Amino acid sequence: MENTTTKRSNVGRSSQAHIAKSIIDCDIHNSVPPGGLSPYLSERWQEHYKTFGLRGRIGGYYPRALLNAARRDAWPPSGLSPGADLSFMQEQLLDTWNIEYGVLNPLIPVGEELNVEFGAALARAVNDWQVADWVEPEPRLRASIVLPYEDGDLAAEEIHRCGPNPAFVQILLLARTRDPLGNRKYWKIYEAAAAYDLPIGIHFGGNQGPITGAGWPSYYIEDHGGMPQAFHTQVISYAMQGVFDRFPTLKIILIEGGFAWLPPLIWRLDATWEKLRAEVPDLKRKPSEYIRDHFWFSTQPMEEPPKREYFEQLLEQMDMDDKLMFATDYPHWDFDSPDRALPSFLKPELRRKILAENARELYAFDKL
Amino acid sequence: MENTTTKRSNVGRSSQAHIAKSIIDCDIHNSVPPGGLSPYLSERWQEHYKTFGLRGRIGGYYPRALLNAARRDAWPPSGLSPGADLSFMQEQLLDTWNIEYGVLNPLIPVGEELNVEFGAALARAVNDWQVADWVEPEPRLRASIVLPYEDGDLAAEEIHRCGPNPAFVQILLLARTRDPLGNRKYWKIYEAAAAYDLPIGIHFGGNQGPITGAGWPSYYIEDHGGMPQAFHTQVISYAMQGVFDRFPTLKIILIEGGFAWLPPLIWRLDATWEKLRAEVPDLKRKPSEYIRDHFWFSTQPMEEPPKREYFEQLLEQMDMDDKLMFATDYPHWDFDSPDRALPSFLKPELRRKILAENARELYAFDKL
Repeated sequence: MENTTTKRSNVGRSSQAHIAKSIIDCDIHNSVPPGGLSPYLSERWQEHYKTFGLRGRIGGYYPRALLNAARRDAWPPSGLSPGADLSFMQEQLLDTWNIEYGVLNPLIPVGEELNVEFGAALARAVNDWQVADWVEPEPRLRASIVLPYEDGDLAAEEIHRCGPNPAFVQILLLARTRDPLGNRKYWKIYEAAAAYDLPIGIHFGGNQGPITGAGWPSYYIEDHGGMPQAFHTQVISYAMQGVFDRFPTLKIILIEGGFAWLPPLIWRLDATWEKLRAEVPDLKRKPSEYIRDHFWFSTQPMEEPPKREYFEQLLEQMDMDDKLMFATDYPHWDFDSPDRALPSFLKPELRRKILAENARELYAFDKL
Repeated sequence: MENTTTKRSNVGRSSQAHIAKSIIDCDIHNSVPPGGLSPYLSERWQEHYKTFGLRGRIGGYYPRALLNAARRDAWPPSGLSPGADLSFMQEQLLDTWNIEYGVLNPLIPVGEELNVEFGAALARAVNDWQVADWVEPEPRLRASIVLPYEDGDLAAEEIHRCGPNPAFVQILLLARTRDPLGNRKYWKIYEAAAAYDLPIGIHFGGNQGPITGAGWPSYYIEDHGGMPQAFHTQVISYAMQGVFDRFPTLKIILIEGGFAWLPPLIWRLDATWEKLRAEVPDLKRKPSEYIRDHFWFSTQPMEEPPKREYFEQLLEQMDMDDKLMFATDYPHWDFDSPDRALPSFLKPELRRKILAENARELYAFDKL
């Protein structure tokens, strides 16, 4: 099923025989069929959408040849877009790989919509659509609350509307926000998240200004290769702005951003904090302590070191075996299959944790 | 002499007894005394400076308590600013530590000046001042060519003016440029650099737009902790834009940006390139190959892992023992002293390479 022509690195891969009994997929992208949101939008906003469309700062930049960023075999026979046809997803993903639970992360540019009232209406529509068209008909799926996240009040309102519904297991943001996410303007989101004990998933993507600290790169390959930088900004911002002292139960999942970059970032931040802590005197702990307690990471795509021992060193330096969680990124082109995503030398216990148990511990799947 | 209240990590430090015979300092910041540039600026530009001052996009953001970002003991008795008094620098840095050669990196915001004609005039003044007031009276020092680097033609003109003078051993840029440095707009700089075989030093700093891909952080501690991100952008840009195929002798030194982040970045870029190389079909080699051949790194500040073995793993994963070069960052507050900057467990040969021999190989010190 796997759509990859990629040469694998020489980190060994397990075969099907190694697949764990339980698999939880932390990153599935469902998409909206034509007119799919209309039942959930008021007439006023349906008219708005017909007349003005979506207006973000920047367009999407997936390569055209990777249409919808999708696996070539993920286009359903129904003619709908990849991720838009539940029965095809059930067959191609959930049944084939025996996925116990899957977390939906619809990447509709709700948080980036410049008209925030329209963004709030879109968020309500997307969230209602996820429950009615996905979670209710398919009990293996859970939804993520999408938000007009650049406005704290509107975002909190939507969390309070959706939070009591156990169909939702996390809040979804994108990595390239307008401001670093530890910023006070986003605190109402965390306050509302804490009220329902909902973790915050931050997914690859977003385009609200130059996507690097040195302007706009020319190529998509630079955009893709450089995506961890936005995650670095968010990790630094959360750790330094005291967010975890203010919201001690807050949990952050970094989705599709890799994690091999974390140990050197932690080393730097602890050293910087030793020298400059006078600027943030209220912080109670070292950056590394906040980070190890409050962050989770999804596996797709993991950085793949050229040697097995480097991967083992990475896991030891991270010291976060309880925080790594498997994801396929279905139906996207860089899909990871459960039988090949993890190096074959992982100990069975760690494999089980990554494939299912860490996610089971984090997400409230059983409340539905 | 060291001005630090920082608790050192438990990576061991060598004592004075371990200092190598030769020390080359790749990052010394000299500064301009009041009126110091006037003899090198035309009357037209002296008038301009008096009337309009420097105009960059953003002001400098060193914490006020770290005035001029300097060591508290680096203010000369003459009353000049840290780095502005040659005889005090000779005593406090060159003589005390027996520095064989030192590379001057004056951080005057020439490349960021919005009026590029004024920027070009400033560059000429700073470069002439470095030769007359620093390198000629002190043969241990060498200068870096500063440039109005956002304009390729003006920048190349200045390189051609200074390049023949062996007082200059590198070209100096700052990490946060207006566009990623692999961009075509900067190629005239590399073409001119190649003509004189001058390496390009890219130093910590620069502020030409939001300093992250997710906007402006609130604190200096986030700015400082996040600085490697701009270096990531530049490494990605150089590798993906084919700069090293076009300029095969080009050498890039990343100064004051650390390097522990390089292995995971290389892993990611090689994987991304395997998947998306269709976008950059002219590239002849893997990103990791370009990077290992064309990049050098200064040591100050190195990331300091909490365990000795992690540092050893880092050196092995980097596989760039010939590309690490010692720097003090004098007279700045986060000064590294030659006797304590490097972990004590380094083998003597690697210590020698880092403290002097790699820099001696790279820079044309002996041409003067």
